[in-house]
Amino acid sequence: MRHFLTLKDFSKEEILEIISLAQKIKQEAKAKEFKPYLNGKVLGMIFEKSSTRTRVSFEVGIHQLGGTGLFLSTDDIQLGRGEPLKDTARVLSRMVDLVMIRTFGQERLEEFARYSTIPIISGLSDRYHPMQLLADYMTIYERGYDKNLVVAYVGDGNNISHSWLMLASKLGFELRISTPKGYEPDSEVLNDAFEFAKISGAKISILDNPKDAIKGATVVTTDTWVSMGQESEKAKRLEEFKGFEVDKEMMSYAQKGAMFLHCLPAYRGFEVSDEVFEEHSEEIFDEAENRLHAQKAVMVWLDRQR
Amino acid sequence: MRHFLTLKDFSKEEILEIISLAQKIKQEAKAKEFKPYLNGKVLGMIFEKSSTRTRVSFEVGIHQLGGTGLFLSTDDIQLGRGEPLKDTARVLSRMVDLVMIRTFGQERLEEFARYSTIPIISGLSDRYHPMQLLADYMTIYERGYDKNLVVAYVGDGNNISHSWLMLASKLGFELRISTPKGYEPDSEVLNDAFEFAKISGAKISILDNPKDAIKGATVVTTDTWVSMGQESEKAKRLEEFKGFEVDKEMMSYAQKGAMFLHCLPAYRGFEVSDEVFEEHSEEIFDEAENRLHAQKAVMVWLDRQR
Amino acid sequence: MRHFLTLKDFSKEEILEIISLAQKIKQEAKAKEFKPYLNGKVLGMIFEKSSTRTRVSFEVGIHQLGGTGLFLSTDDIQLGRGEPLKDTARVLSRMVDLVMIRTFGQERLEEFARYSTIPIISGLSDRYHPMQLLADYMTIYERGYDKNLVVAYVGDGNNISHSWLMLASKLGFELRISTPKGYEPDSEVLNDAFEFAKISGAKISILDNPKDAIKGATVVTTDTWVSMGQESEKAKRLEEFKGFEVDKEMMSYAQKGAMFLHCLPAYRGFEVSDEVFEEHSEEIFDEAENRLHAQKAVMVWLDRQR
Repeated sequence: MRHFLTLKDFSKEEILEIISLAQKIKQEAKAKEFKPYLNGKVLGMIFEKSSTRTRVSFEVGIHQLGGTGLFLSTDDIQLGRGEPLKDTARVLSRMVDLVMIRTFGQERLEEFARYSTIPIISGLSDRYHPMQLLADYMTIYERGYDKNLVVAYVGDGNNISHSWLMLASKLGFELRISTPKGYEPDSEVLNDAFEFAKISGAKISILDNPKDAIKGATVVTTDTWVSMGQESEKAKRLEEFKGFEVDKEMMSYAQKGAMFLHCLPAYRGFEVSDEVFEEHSEEIFDEAENRLHAQKAVMVWLDRQR
Repeated sequence: MRHFLTLKDFSKEEILEIISLAQKIKQEAKAKEFKPYLNGKVLGMIFEKSSTRTRVSFEVGIHQLGGTGLFLSTDDIQLGRGEPLKDTARVLSRMVDLVMIRTFGQERLEEFARYSTIPIISGLSDRYHPMQLLADYMTIYERGYDKNLVVAYVGDGNNISHSWLMLASKLGFELRISTPKGYEPDSEVLNDAFEFAKISGAKISILDNPKDAIKGATVVTTDTWVSMGQESEKAKRLEEFKGFEVDKEMMSYAQKGAMFLHCLPAYRGFEVSDEVFEEHSEEIFDEAENRLHAQKAVMVWLDRQR
Repeated sequence: MRHFLTLKDFSKEEILEIISLAQKIKQEAKAKEFKPYLNGKVLGMIFEKSSTRTRVSFEVGIHQLGGTGLFLSTDDIQLGRGEPLKDTARVLSRMVDLVMIRTFGQERLEEFARYSTIPIISGLSDRYHPMQLLADYMTIYERGYDKNLVVAYVGDGNNISHSWLMLASKLGFELRISTPKGYEPDSEVLNDAFEFAKISGAKISILDNPKDAIKGATVVTTDTWVSMGQESEKAKRLEEFKGFEVDKEMMSYAQKGAMFLHCLPAYRGFEVSDEVFEEHSEEIFDEAENRLHAQKAVMVWLDRQR
């Protein structure tokens, strides 16, 4: 049995296999052909952090696969009353077939998985967001940008940047990260990425100046500067992230025709200008839609490993 | 593609077509014949205001049509965190097949619809409640009260009164509205109704004295005096609505055998007496049930326009 | 039509018939044979108190029976805004096929049932938790412990103890209850149990010393000392329940090989030691899983009485 907690646990071949399955499932869906890959199965969805995209895409996804999703917010379940995670994991293992968890600490995902007898899927943690990265890569791949790929991630060294590090270092493409001082990616994640890069041949660099990162990039991406739970630091963050907004001028350093991706929600005038956002909206909403297809693929793939 | 945001956008023929479809779907349901009109489709249901009837009737309805409903409260989704409506509209358009929204401002519905590539359905706004009126008219029609129909609406000039104005002025029946001073229907809605009435031949009147409105009416109806979000004005409203309670004496002015409708929740001793409510409970709970059938009809009808 | 509000309303034969149906449904599920006993039916699930197990087991259960579940928290529905229970009961009767309610007062369940034209199922009240007891007895029965059964319930004289009293006095087995002074089961429930015991031959005793209760028992069980809504009394309760923790030493008084059951959530170091819990975890999580099967059986059984 396998879990899907971070791309760190997956090989290049496995990641590409899932992407390929996602493309197949997407084509079937576009042809209105919904195959019951997970007929009658139940996905438990635990949200310790709320989310539109994760909620809707997982619940629609499991439905289209022939199963059903159970939305569990922390208010609804005993986790909110201090039941040990290991008990909830053991109870849910007896009742449902798969569990998706969107939570704060990655260690909560890991503890849940340790006691679970069914596959656990990360729907985001403070450390990683592997599902988003599958959707991102799928969007890149669909448009043929996976050839000679150079990704520039500009902004906060958060879970999204960590998952870019995992994806690049596993698949072997070039990734440049530029963050304000004090907002660099976690050093442990960086070390892991440098290790994996030795095998895959990925070129990974951390740069002070966002323009240096973007220069010649084929894909530019960013994320909100103020994630959920960081609202109290908002004013300080907005100040310290000055100069990192991806606007037209910033995009002009990228390769002509470069893609711009954003995992949403997007705050115009902060991490991205409205102009850049709307010019690339087709890519961005494809990226959002690909969450649906990628997640269906992960669920089917995990079910096949059992 | 069409949306269902207000009856203002619909012709008499279209309204009657939907009512007729609702009757057909109701008869099939009574015969335990649930046809998969919307097989595998997903209805997103956004609730910025909570509701029993709207929630249950939409979720049961889409299920009986062969699809599934996704309940999204503002707490669960990013709308609560200030994501622009247009982004949520574009994301949901990629993932679900229909969206129902229960919200405060009608302009939120309209903006959502503007950016959506799938049909949007109003589940109530501060301005209109078109779904309720379809259920009301269905209840009237089932009992043969659509002939020589004279409706008296007594109480608050709110969204329900606005939708009565749209229904009457489109279909061409007589509607009398009586509200306390300062609680009249919106003048813009009134003007629209008077315009439509010129074509349909509807007789619309606004009367000071509720007894004058009810005199000879074949259907009497009202709504709560304190809607969601108006709790702070409660004491003031209760004072100013004195004399507008629909009790036995008030009903005695109506035609013998007149119907009494209420869209619920009902507050006895305020807008309606317990006696009147319970005497007409069969009509009132038929009306509630007809929400289910009318909404199924609207979903099927919209799907057929695509 | 029958409701499932308390075991008090059920005969020994009916209880055993439901248990037997639950075993059949469990075996079918283990063989991945999910028969559509309630095809297309809708279960409304009203939670005035939150819960993992009740929520998940009912929603998964109705899905596996071919229907669908509607999760209604008090925040989502008008009950939270003071709509009379009898109106909600009458509306839901028009829209769904079965209703499960998890609430505070047993009288709320009874009032709901009085106005309902569809079967109502208790998912727990302050007075009883009949579903849990069916799952418990199923777990006992599966392991052959229903022969010469002696149950010791040690702890709080709450809804769980009340349902043990109903189960034992209906089925005719020996039940010993030991609670701290002031936490005895309700005297009305006790009187009922003594009455039923006259017919069934059950031996029911209330003992001061938990060790006396456990001596020679074949099944030991307890429940949390601080239920939902009692958080303010927590410190006082923890003090007064000293000496009632089921630990290794306490279990040594039971018959060799005795089972230990717990309906969860379990608070280690309070009502049960971690050691006892983990040694009996297979039984405890079987018991949790049996909620799913027992509830499916109750829904199917009620549907057959209509």
